[in-house]
Amino acid sequence: MSEVVQKSKLAKQAARQMGSLTTEQKNAALLLMADSLITEQAAIIEANAKDLQRGKENGLSASLLDRLALNEGRIAAMADGLRQITELPDPIGDTLESFDRPNGLHIQKIRVPLGVIGIIYEARPNVTVDAAGLCLKTGNAVVLRGGSSALFSNEKIVEVLHGALSRSAIPMDALQLILNPDRSSVDEMLKLNGLIDVLIPRGGHSLIQNVVNNASVPVIETGAGVCHTFIDESAQLDMAIRIAVNAKAQRPSVCNSMETMLVHKAFAEQHLDALAVAFEAARVELRGDERARTLVPSMKQAEAGDWGTEYGDYILNVKIVQNLDEALTHIRTYGTMHSECIVTEHAENASVFLQEVDAAAVYHNASTRFTDGFEFGFGAEIGISTQKLHARGPMGLPALTSTKYRIYGNGQIRE
Amino acid sequence: MSEVVQKSKLAKQAARQMGSLTTEQKNAALLLMADSLITEQAAIIEANAKDLQRGKENGLSASLLDRLALNEGRIAAMADGLRQITELPDPIGDTLESFDRPNGLHIQKIRVPLGVIGIIYEARPNVTVDAAGLCLKTGNAVVLRGGSSALFSNEKIVEVLHGALSRSAIPMDALQLILNPDRSSVDEMLKLNGLIDVLIPRGGHSLIQNVVNNASVPVIETGAGVCHTFIDESAQLDMAIRIAVNAKAQRPSVCNSMETMLVHKAFAEQHLDALAVAFEAARVELRGDERARTLVPSMKQAEAGDWGTEYGDYILNVKIVQNLDEALTHIRTYGTMHSECIVTEHAENASVFLQEVDAAAVYHNASTRFTDGFEFGFGAEIGISTQKLHARGPMGLPALTSTKYRIYGNGQIRE
Repeated sequence: MSEVVQKSKLAKQAARQMGSLTTEQKNAALLLMADSLITEQAAIIEANAKDLQRGKENGLSASLLDRLALNEGRIAAMADGLRQITELPDPIGDTLESFDRPNGLHIQKIRVPLGVIGIIYEARPNVTVDAAGLCLKTGNAVVLRGGSSALFSNEKIVEVLHGALSRSAIPMDALQLILNPDRSSVDEMLKLNGLIDVLIPRGGHSLIQNVVNNASVPVIETGAGVCHTFIDESAQLDMAIRIAVNAKAQRPSVCNSMETMLVHKAFAEQHLDALAVAFEAARVELRGDERARTLVPSMKQAEAGDWGTEYGDYILNVKIVQNLDEALTHIRTYGTMHSECIVTEHAENASVFLQEVDAAAVYHNASTRFTDGFEFGFGAEIGISTQKLHARGPMGLPALTSTKYRIYGNGQIRE
Repeated sequence: MSEVVQKSKLAKQAARQMGSLTTEQKNAALLLMADSLITEQAAIIEANAKDLQRGKENGLSASLLDRLALNEGRIAAMADGLRQITELPDPIGDTLESFDRPNGLHIQKIRVPLGVIGIIYEARPNVTVDAAGLCLKTGNAVVLRGGSSALFSNEKIVEVLHGALSRSAIPMDALQLILNPDRSSVDEMLKLNGLIDVLIPRGGHSLIQNVVNNASVPVIETGAGVCHTFIDESAQLDMAIRIAVNAKAQRPSVCNSMETMLVHKAFAEQHLDALAVAFEAARVELRGDERARTLVPSMKQAEAGDWGTEYGDYILNVKIVQNLDEALTHIRTYGTMHSECIVTEHAENASVFLQEVDAAAVYHNASTRFTDGFEFGFGAEIGISTQKLHARGPMGLPALTSTKYRIYGNGQIRE
């Protein structure tokens, strides 16, 4: 039996006990996990140093090494994250519906855990802690398959968390880490129907597409974001600049940042200069269509492939549109149904945009950067779903649950 | 461009308009569809006769030919089904949540259509009408891929429905039927991410498994049901017989019927005879484990493979268990998480069973045959989900919807 099958079976067995734990038992376990991260931080940092050393030898980029690196501050943040999860309401056991049928049957719809959640992710070791905390709080068992570049860190972190669980009501087997760094262990997880109930990929485009295209286990697709901001004719200049620059440059590496700015022709003729100056100050490279370059000749030329590209960097496409309709058509063509914004003072245009654009989050006069579980007030986030099934947009704890019907009778049969 | 791609593109274009239709517009279209089925019933029955003729030539079984056959009564039932859908509340546009953030953002979570739903199904032509009605009522476009044995019937039905849509606000392209009977058209639908948002397979085990195992488009798995009834020591004999016989024999071909009866040892020693007599009267063949056959020697021997088999027929496995725990273990091993029942007068055992059994519907003292959208009072049913993601159990109209967040700001940016 392979490591993946063996550990998933253990997780499934543990999952059976998880659904009956009380909120207090789960919270107590999470607090022990948080404490253990702090008391064991030296060992975690030591393990992390091995990953960093190997990463340097393998020529990882500075930004990847930065994502990988742990220090006391980052470990404290991970522990705080767990403590925050304990403060969130526990959705498990909630009665979502309750009704009586004419034949006397009483039917309840109850929130239950999903069961075993598989998380496939990349270099950031904080995902290990975060995903474990969110899945366990919602009564799920979790099988983690992190990136090989963080293997020493993840192994030590899970060892520390297991130590905490051994002193709690949560069975240690509810938390599993796959150590096999080969791609074959991912391939195996994708087909583990019956042992894994749901897969959540977290990472870059190719990781997510591999999971979406090849899994037979149900998937919650997260992450890819080619987001747009449309600056309408009636937009206020200062607000448009503030929102657009924030959407692009406040943190370009994340999925809710803007990749393409669409500007109404009349607004552009007046103000594209001012926008360009603001982006230059934010060190953003602009790539314009022909009409944009006529107005601001210093822009580079946008290539055909640029419109669908998630740069995750200080690069922005700029396109001039004749009207709202042309903006909607562009978003329909190139958007990834993540986050889309209109900046306008025209109520009717805002209303049409918010109705017509098919995306997880549609904004009027606010930065797309707000698409985030914490910014929405969920207190946690396992990812941002870009699919339409099960959950859409930032996913808080309820996205990690399912339901079941309980039916109470006194001998009813169907005629 | 293949037929599947071409029709799915047309469906996707039509889907854009569908989300903005009013409930009145959609209901009016469904009523026109219902009327057209009646006025065109002669043509539908004529087309159906060609399918029946071909089916006989191809040696279809009598029960398959019966499922395929249409007559005035069945067409009237299909039309009535559409009229009933118009009476159901329209979930689209409902505000599910609405909240304000400290920074002044106002966030609404709104119900929206899924987009384009692909339905892959087998011989029954009534699914064509039923699925079309449910998907269009919820503002979705639908791509239907029915079984080749019903092709003439389905083609005529869709032609009739298109005639009705041409006089309505729903674009005709929102309803598509794939005519290519090759398996390649199914294979193509399974991979059509970006054009089809969700696939719902309806049919037998191999059809559903093909979709689940090979689709990259998100799937709602339906149907397979290896359901159990556990008769506990304290069960009332008359209630136990009534529920067990109903669960098995009222309509054995459907997924919520019982395949295995688990009987507490003490109850079996007293009453297995009486149960056997009742099943004999209902012409049910019993296949017992060794302990059951000691008590009722006339039973056949159950083979290892029988415990996981969905007979869909007048056959029932019988297993004697020592206690509730053994029953739970058996259900965990062989159940398909569909519908499971305990018959008991022992409140604590009922409570443990309803908590521990991981299934879409868990029953105390009532037949598993009630797992059904109409019996639950939903007024409609697109299928019974046996997965944990998105929807679980009987699926009414809300299961055919997604959500989106609308965020209203006045210049907010993220710090």
